[in-house]
Amino acid sequence: MTVTGEFARLQRRLGGDKVLLRPAECSSYRYDAIQFGTRPLAVVLPETVEDVVEAVRAARAAGVPVVGRGAASGLSGGAAPAQPSLVVSFTRMTSLRILPQRREAVAQAGVVTLAVSEAARPYGLMYPPDPASLRTSTIGGNLGENAGGPLCFKYGVTGDYVKALQMVDAEGEIHHLSRGAYDLAGLLIGSEGTLGLITEATLRLVPPAQHTLTLQASFGSVEACAAAVSAAISAGAVPAKLEFMDAACIGAVEDYLNLGLPRHAAALLLVDSDGDDPAQVEAELAVVEAAFRAAGGEVRRARNPQEAAALWQARRSVSPALGRIRPARMNEDIAVPRSQLAQVVAEIQAVAAPYGFPLVQFGHIGDGNLHPNILFDPRQDDPAQVHELAHRIAQVALRHGGVLSGEHGIGSMKRAFMAEAVDPSTAAAYWAVKDALDPAGRLNPAKLLPPRAARPVRGEEPHVGA
Amino acid sequence: MTVTGEFARLQRRLGGDKVLLRPAECSSYRYDAIQFGTRPLAVVLPETVEDVVEAVRAARAAGVPVVGRGAASGLSGGAAPAQPSLVVSFTRMTSLRILPQRREAVAQAGVVTLAVSEAARPYGLMYPPDPASLRTSTIGGNLGENAGGPLCFKYGVTGDYVKALQMVDAEGEIHHLSRGAYDLAGLLIGSEGTLGLITEATLRLVPPAQHTLTLQASFGSVEACAAAVSAAISAGAVPAKLEFMDAACIGAVEDYLNLGLPRHAAALLLVDSDGDDPAQVEAELAVVEAAFRAAGGEVRRARNPQEAAALWQARRSVSPALGRIRPARMNEDIAVPRSQLAQVVAEIQAVAAPYGFPLVQFGHIGDGNLHPNILFDPRQDDPAQVHELAHRIAQVALRHGGVLSGEHGIGSMKRAFMAEAVDPSTAAAYWAVKDALDPAGRLNPAKLLPPRAARPVRGEEPHVGA
Repeated sequence: MTVTGEFARLQRRLGGDKVLLRPAECSSYRYDAIQFGTRPLAVVLPETVEDVVEAVRAARAAGVPVVGRGAASGLSGGAAPAQPSLVVSFTRMTSLRILPQRREAVAQAGVVTLAVSEAARPYGLMYPPDPASLRTSTIGGNLGENAGGPLCFKYGVTGDYVKALQMVDAEGEIHHLSRGAYDLAGLLIGSEGTLGLITEATLRLVPPAQHTLTLQASFGSVEACAAAVSAAISAGAVPAKLEFMDAACIGAVEDYLNLGLPRHAAALLLVDSDGDDPAQVEAELAVVEAAFRAAGGEVRRARNPQEAAALWQARRSVSPALGRIRPARMNEDIAVPRSQLAQVVAEIQAVAAPYGFPLVQFGHIGDGNLHPNILFDPRQDDPAQVHELAHRIAQVALRHGGVLSGEHGIGSMKRAFMAEAVDPSTAAAYWAVKDALDPAGRLNPAKLLPPRAARPVRGEEPHVGA
Repeated sequence: MTVTGEFARLQRRLGGDKVLLRPAECSSYRYDAIQFGTRPLAVVLPETVEDVVEAVRAARAAGVPVVGRGAASGLSGGAAPAQPSLVVSFTRMTSLRILPQRREAVAQAGVVTLAVSEAARPYGLMYPPDPASLRTSTIGGNLGENAGGPLCFKYGVTGDYVKALQMVDAEGEIHHLSRGAYDLAGLLIGSEGTLGLITEATLRLVPPAQHTLTLQASFGSVEACAAAVSAAISAGAVPAKLEFMDAACIGAVEDYLNLGLPRHAAALLLVDSDGDDPAQVEAELAVVEAAFRAAGGEVRRARNPQEAAALWQARRSVSPALGRIRPARMNEDIAVPRSQLAQVVAEIQAVAAPYGFPLVQFGHIGDGNLHPNILFDPRQDDPAQVHELAHRIAQVALRHGGVLSGEHGIGSMKRAFMAEAVDPSTAAAYWAVKDALDPAGRLNPAKLLPPRAARPVRGEEPHVGA
């Protein structure tokens, strides 16, 4: 049967409103929040895991790739099809159950991240992973990218809260994966839909902290700021949030909202300490404040929740503030050892200067996660130049012992850099695992994995699994 | 070259004291703490990762399996060779570095578990995973089995503390694996040396809690005990340790040491609450105590560390106490939902009764981890009967939504049960991953994975990765 015939048959089986076939309808499923992909051949909007099975089988029969998709708020192209594909959009799979006795939530892939904590709140529980897009992003998308957020320094990333997964494999088989050996659930998390489609997750819930205190600190140099952070952490502080903004970022936000941020500063930190015991929260923030002052920081404490919200408004306004400078941005997402941070920020500035693009840097500095953003105008600027600079920024991270993705994933955006980040033998192991679970290469092709190396002839050179 | 010739050459390359070839020397490397395996063909005692590479290549050239081994304190046969093999014993790879600024330890596979916390203590840090054998077990063995212990309910298991791994694959290639996608490090953890040999781990350290309080409680029924645990956890308590002993276990310890334990009780609980703030630790233990009393428990609080140590002596004495009853035991290691615990304990007693073996049950009840121990005398009792009962105990766990291994691993002991625990399509996915990373099947064969199913003919039946 032709591709068109297969998908028309899928539409008859599932019902007309679950399968989009018209190019105009399919067009809106080609992008994520940053990257544009290829227009899908068809889009399925499954309501059950059985619908997902049908979709995967139809794509298999048609011989076309399958690309899973949540809210498409991703920033690395994970959900943007690289080839003409069947897109499986999980936004209708929104079943959510809270099991308070077990401190678990059972969420289908399309459940919005924030909805988990909202449903858990009446039971005195919450779900900590907090990507910036948590009001729109889905659990399935968060799992695909192993999303993090400000709270992750203290509380861990998405994968740390997964107790079990339901997934549909490349052949349309349903699996129920717990976290025992082999930990295929762990392998699926962060695999960007290249090994299977996650349809449901059992998530661990925790009681929220009862008290939070906030401070802001500004520094005359990024070096002083980085030293302050290291000193606070070495002194035993584990703040719930620890956010960094560079001078360009401070300026962008101040131009936008005129919040009274210290324009003279080279670096700004925002810190939340949380816990159940007010005295201990205060003690932790005092440790942070002392370390920051000793490093030359000017510290402002929020005296009440309203002042805390005002301080955090600066960080929350970064995205719209950058949008006013240039209409588009390439949002890098590296993670480097904290000890290297000052040097990495400086080297990235130096590397970027000749290109002439506005560049701002901010991120979750507690775990060394940095987001250098290249601002550009797609109508005037050369996208090849933007990509070249992004590549050079990634190289700075790798040179300093860092990694390519703190929390946004690799997707299509940083795939080419993977070859530099991973040893050839380890890349071969990735491909061996990929080939094992998706032998026909139908699941989200051309994402995450470094381009496949030419396979050495067996026996000549030792290698993994070819 | 012959097998003997390959290993003689390996001995010449590495040096005589690093390679054992005499059958008498090799014999002591055939067992773990419970299971006996096949005598190794040779034993390598590597001192560097390069030695491991040489060993794997020699085994490959000789066409024999490779079995990794730590202190062999495991309880499921993971380190006991199922076939004539080259055993790689990691006990000389004991390099250990503490990086206090990064809160990390870099430990080679042969580092003894307890040594990590001892080396970290001067820096105000510790390594939480605490298998019962932590004074002898190695980090490599803990990683192979993803070991847990009493602290794991609150603090998580071995895998939760791994930031990166160094591993040697089936071809002798060295890999450096971080926890990003694909999370091959996570896949290796708990894989019992069937996917690669872990040679070094970068471990996360945490500051130890400053205060600990202890209580003991006895109950007239296992139902009341299980209800008490659920009530305490539902009320918000997350005790650092929460240990259960059944009546048979209480009796065994009391016969051994005459500690004054309540012989009339059907169940005993031992609880540690910990934290940095004494008032909060006291508040948590008060929640536990109230829940236990409401469920009919008789509670005894330790008033000082000496009394706490005395209460914990009961739990620490279980192993020697059981050794006095019968010379051997089959130590099961299931994990079941807490809500099912009372019924599981009762069903296991009922299932075991006709066999006539003494049976005791204890475990880390906080996460539903239960250790039913079948006591027997290998000189008189039929091992087939012991294995049959172990199998029936595993089936009780599976019937109640439990898993086969709480913390000891599957090894050879519970491998046959895996076929009942895992769907055929998921077992096929396990084998696809195994074949991808160890195509010749040379790494610790006949462990962990369920026996391989006959492969369906392609096209007839959808399945994974054949």
